[in-house]
Amino acid sequence: MKTLLALRALDFQRIIIMIIVLKPDTTPAEIEHVVERIHQLGLKPHVSTGEHRTIIGVIGDENKLQAQPLQAIPGVEQVLPIMKPFKLASREFSKKDTVVSVGKVKIGGGALGMIAGPCAIESREVLNEIAGHVKKAGANILRGGAFKPRTSPYSFQGLGEEGLKILRSVGDAHDMPVVTEVMDPRQIPLVEKYTDMFQIGARNMQNFDLLKEIGQTKTPVLMKRGMSATVKDLLMSAEYVLSEGNPNVVLCERGVRSFEDSTRNMLDMSAVPNVKGMSHLPIIVDPSHATGRPDLIPAMAMASVAAGADGVHIEVHSCPEKALSDGPQALLPPKYAEVMKQIRKLAELFGKTY
Amino acid sequence: MKTLLALRALDFQRIIIMIIVLKPDTTPAEIEHVVERIHQLGLKPHVSTGEHRTIIGVIGDENKLQAQPLQAIPGVEQVLPIMKPFKLASREFSKKDTVVSVGKVKIGGGALGMIAGPCAIESREVLNEIAGHVKKAGANILRGGAFKPRTSPYSFQGLGEEGLKILRSVGDAHDMPVVTEVMDPRQIPLVEKYTDMFQIGARNMQNFDLLKEIGQTKTPVLMKRGMSATVKDLLMSAEYVLSEGNPNVVLCERGVRSFEDSTRNMLDMSAVPNVKGMSHLPIIVDPSHATGRPDLIPAMAMASVAAGADGVHIEVHSCPEKALSDGPQALLPPKYAEVMKQIRKLAELFGKTY
Amino acid sequence: MKTLLALRALDFQRIIIMIIVLKPDTTPAEIEHVVERIHQLGLKPHVSTGEHRTIIGVIGDENKLQAQPLQAIPGVEQVLPIMKPFKLASREFSKKDTVVSVGKVKIGGGALGMIAGPCAIESREVLNEIAGHVKKAGANILRGGAFKPRTSPYSFQGLGEEGLKILRSVGDAHDMPVVTEVMDPRQIPLVEKYTDMFQIGARNMQNFDLLKEIGQTKTPVLMKRGMSATVKDLLMSAEYVLSEGNPNVVLCERGVRSFEDSTRNMLDMSAVPNVKGMSHLPIIVDPSHATGRPDLIPAMAMASVAAGADGVHIEVHSCPEKALSDGPQALLPPKYAEVMKQIRKLAELFGKTY
Amino acid sequence: MKTLLALRALDFQRIIIMIIVLKPDTTPAEIEHVVERIHQLGLKPHVSTGEHRTIIGVIGDENKLQAQPLQAIPGVEQVLPIMKPFKLASREFSKKDTVVSVGKVKIGGGALGMIAGPCAIESREVLNEIAGHVKKAGANILRGGAFKPRTSPYSFQGLGEEGLKILRSVGDAHDMPVVTEVMDPRQIPLVEKYTDMFQIGARNMQNFDLLKEIGQTKTPVLMKRGMSATVKDLLMSAEYVLSEGNPNVVLCERGVRSFEDSTRNMLDMSAVPNVKGMSHLPIIVDPSHATGRPDLIPAMAMASVAAGADGVHIEVHSCPEKALSDGPQALLPPKYAEVMKQIRKLAELFGKTY
Repeated sequence: MKTLLALRALDFQRIIIMIIVLKPDTTPAEIEHVVERIHQLGLKPHVSTGEHRTIIGVIGDENKLQAQPLQAIPGVEQVLPIMKPFKLASREFSKKDTVVSVGKVKIGGGALGMIAGPCAIESREVLNEIAGHVKKAGANILRGGAFKPRTSPYSFQGLGEEGLKILRSVGDAHDMPVVTEVMDPRQIPLVEKYTDMFQIGARNMQNFDLLKEIGQTKTPVLMKRGMSATVKDLLMSAEYVLSEGNPNVVLCERGVRSFEDSTRNMLDMSAVPNVKGMSHLPIIVDPSHATGRPDLIPAMAMASVAAGADGVHIEVHSCPEKALSDGPQALLPPKYAEVMKQIRKLAELFGKTY
Repeated sequence: MKTLLALRALDFQRIIIMIIVLKPDTTPAEIEHVVERIHQLGLKPHVSTGEHRTIIGVIGDENKLQAQPLQAIPGVEQVLPIMKPFKLASREFSKKDTVVSVGKVKIGGGALGMIAGPCAIESREVLNEIAGHVKKAGANILRGGAFKPRTSPYSFQGLGEEGLKILRSVGDAHDMPVVTEVMDPRQIPLVEKYTDMFQIGARNMQNFDLLKEIGQTKTPVLMKRGMSATVKDLLMSAEYVLSEGNPNVVLCERGVRSFEDSTRNMLDMSAVPNVKGMSHLPIIVDPSHATGRPDLIPAMAMASVAAGADGVHIEVHSCPEKALSDGPQALLPPKYAEVMKQIRKLAELFGKTY
Repeated sequence: MKTLLALRALDFQRIIIMIIVLKPDTTPAEIEHVVERIHQLGLKPHVSTGEHRTIIGVIGDENKLQAQPLQAIPGVEQVLPIMKPFKLASREFSKKDTVVSVGKVKIGGGALGMIAGPCAIESREVLNEIAGHVKKAGANILRGGAFKPRTSPYSFQGLGEEGLKILRSVGDAHDMPVVTEVMDPRQIPLVEKYTDMFQIGARNMQNFDLLKEIGQTKTPVLMKRGMSATVKDLLMSAEYVLSEGNPNVVLCERGVRSFEDSTRNMLDMSAVPNVKGMSHLPIIVDPSHATGRPDLIPAMAMASVAAGADGVHIEVHSCPEKALSDGPQALLPPKYAEVMKQIRKLAELFGKTY
Repeated sequence: MKTLLALRALDFQRIIIMIIVLKPDTTPAEIEHVVERIHQLGLKPHVSTGEHRTIIGVIGDENKLQAQPLQAIPGVEQVLPIMKPFKLASREFSKKDTVVSVGKVKIGGGALGMIAGPCAIESREVLNEIAGHVKKAGANILRGGAFKPRTSPYSFQGLGEEGLKILRSVGDAHDMPVVTEVMDPRQIPLVEKYTDMFQIGARNMQNFDLLKEIGQTKTPVLMKRGMSATVKDLLMSAEYVLSEGNPNVVLCERGVRSFEDSTRNMLDMSAVPNVKGMSHLPIIVDPSHATGRPDLIPAMAMASVAAGADGVHIEVHSCPEKALSDGPQALLPPKYAEVMKQIRKLAELFGKTY
């Protein structure tokens, strides 16, 4: 599979177009210099000399073009790359929606991944209680953090392997596949032993060593959008995983940084149809981290499904005020059950299942 | 009505709390200075001296407190205002959702305002054709710009009064109330003659003279969120209109500026439940300006209704590529009809009508 | 002058290039449709058919091209405009730096405008005291607001004409030209009577009616960057004033909205050399509004001059804690004098005068 | 040293104040519930009952308070933490500026770190040539990347250990200490063998495992601000390194993501005095990555020094157009020499040395 993907990637890679716009006062010698450099690359420049400007188009192998910072050549004003910088993740690569299987649960192609659970795993009792509630309400994947990326070194850092064991056994007890975050490439074998899906957190979306090594596993990946990542950056990070041979990537919109100070982040809901247009990968929404406000989560969960998301990721805790991490943004189980009841109707309306 | 509102505003205004946190190394003399100044204001400071910090709480008349920049007093580290800075627009002012009537159409309290039409009014024929299409598809308010705020002075600036006349007569012909933008306080009487609802554009959300004078009319207002306005800024601008005596304000989320470069703006969908928690005013969503991409509009329109919006504002043009303004972001009539069909089902699911 | 500017603008306007990138799977019929439409515009399309993509270049009159939203034509993926959207403001229009005269003071071309004064004019006594201090410290233009754009309708709104009179007479007494904000086109004649320079506030940077009418005067303009305006937006707003015939525009960087929560705005210092590369207009920096923090103003004022700014705009108040508006961000006169002493040395190092 | 730091950290940690603001309509029972929970934490609540609101102040051990998400308790409207969340990095911890030694070079306390070199190490010849140029121009630390974090998996990823060897030997040949990026905790021993200073890239600023393990070395660290990190986030990441026992942290402002599309990032120049007010750690500026535009680098380098930065980090390449990574943003050696000549004069003016 990996070889096949790599081959197709190679093939796909070939297509790129660069538009090189020269400055208004470029001399013929400078134009000649640019043209010459393009020839040195084994490429054929298409020069269009207008009354006011000269433009050079180049079609060719992206790797060669990327490696040559044409922008720095004297006389060049702008270099406009026309092709998208990701390939295996692109809609052109696959017209058909990818469906990712997490245990027996499917995400994508009409199947919704309803992920729920506490931010951090605190104890078997608490997790078990929450799992019971969310399963009953309709969740199909259990989440919980054993390793926590915390902004402050003095905050609770997670239970580690003990947490992973709890997650696995509680997931099994409730017949739910589980997802948990992996933060360090060295944790991959350990975490893989206990989980059905890796989560790559927002802070690690561009931890490229981590992405590559997760790409060498077959375990599905829930890839959260970085706090200031564009939709293209997100797809490029997915490309890292795909290009190593792991095709099981589910993207997750979880809000980006903005000037708005009444929510934790700004949920970019348009990322859902935007990703669907550019990529075949499934995308879910996490309104818990995006808003940081339990009062906004229900409306945002509904909107996500209406926007076409392939699932919703919600933090649920039976006692948010006692939670050791991110408590305030968690929903109480009864509130979660209520939201799920409404989502059920929406899902039916849109012909989605879970 | 205006007097009543003003009275209640006065009353409401009284409540404010300031928490003044002093710096760690504040001297007793500095503390005394702060305390003295608060007394000078006729207020009673509550001093809490901790082991490491001194904190002073002040409860009193907001106007007095605001007028005194306590932050600049030596020894003061932070001043934290506790009360919300808007009042008439606040949910505390009215637990009940406000319903705004635009002609015979209602917006808010379960009634959806489905506003549609071209960006700019170009000719009677084109507007009439579009109006026919959107009315049939379910729109209940017709929009069209006669005065256009354009970033470039060389762009089409609108037809002016001629455009207003066309809008009025086409609206009447199709039995639809109309909304159009007013950009300058001097245009108010002219625009008011022809329109059922003023639009205040994003670029004018903090044009306070305009807000005040619109506040002195009784004509409903569609107030668009500024490109870098927080939700609180938006409510504060609504407060300008309300405090002058015009209670008929409908807010509109239309995206804010962000680093994401694949959409025109970033649609802050969470503003919908966020506004609903803080205010009794109706809020609709404009996915056309928010995304600038027709391919994302349908999903965002659906999501808006699911998020609880009181309506959707969509640009429709029978030939977007010929439109004199903002063409690329307009939907074609058949696409609009299709979206409206789906919204109808969603609206039914949520018990909303239009 | 106006006619000349208009003529040159017309001339300048002609030059524009659009690169139209078609989608990968465009049919020959679709290509034909695009080509045909370009011909209808009286323009000559240059079609480049690559192995994978077709690209069409168009060089022609910008007005025609802008009026035609090519992006909406079926088959078109991207339309890339190559030319800058402003002209009279552009560096191409004038290689030489513009010098704006405000009374006897010059800004630009090596001359620094050192603007200082309180946010709002509160009384003759207070303004007179502050003017004495800042003049002595080296300021050459006095500022003070008579009409204040306030986010809250309940905040102090300025003294109006009474404030203008005070400003004029205090300026005259200290032999300093004065600058004050104008918010409404109807105030222009009144404000013009008393001031040497109009300030256009950040909130009004895209109040196009205001810009146009100020463009019809000859009074110099201090144009503040909008809170979410790009550098290009700022230059486009300057273009509004220039294109009406008023060439005396001084730009002002005053910070933009961002996620950083420890400063009021984010001072975009790179806007200084960025504007200087794109435009011949002078640009000054306002660290007071940009940071909102007196402790950061001195360092930012120094950095502005080192970055090449044509002046610095600083709020000074003899009692910031008593100021009726924006007090906390004002410097005390002794602090201002200290900063100015250092700026003097920097200015000498860079060969700037004031 | 580590024990001492840890001890002081413990001591320092104790101080925190939380202001808990209850909702307007809180019942006495709810207030009692909040108070009770605070007592359960072994803390003493200070209840202030106003006419309209109840406020509870708590002073105590931050760890206990942080672990309890008070915000989620019914009746609580806002929880306002008063103390800064970092300690060892804070100005309160050390009034004296920290000076970090990188080989024989000092950064901080009046000594400037002038870091220069190519983005990526491409070959011994190229690096040697560049090192010769920058050393002669006044640079005192050589930079170059052996492991490159690249947004696209198809871009040049660095020479790895071969690159480190080249860096070391070229640095030694020119008598310059060297700095290079480390991306993965497993690379620490390898990279440490060859480098005098670790660089933590913007994308890894919150890779907490990396931070902790670098904190366990004694090698100085150049910590770049994340693309959407606030100044507080940056200091918190420094705290991770400090709290593990490595006190040698130099911060680096390198621009943040913004809506401005004419520069690669937005250089937040005010971060320099802002950090200096909050922390004792040195901070340098990287105008190359911040702007992505060689034409803006000179002005921004000058402004950085004028703003009080402890150094400047500039990319220099003898042939930017041939560079394998980030070429367009590099300065040519003659341009760099010119900038350095001006910086020399600025440094003298401010009494800084290098």
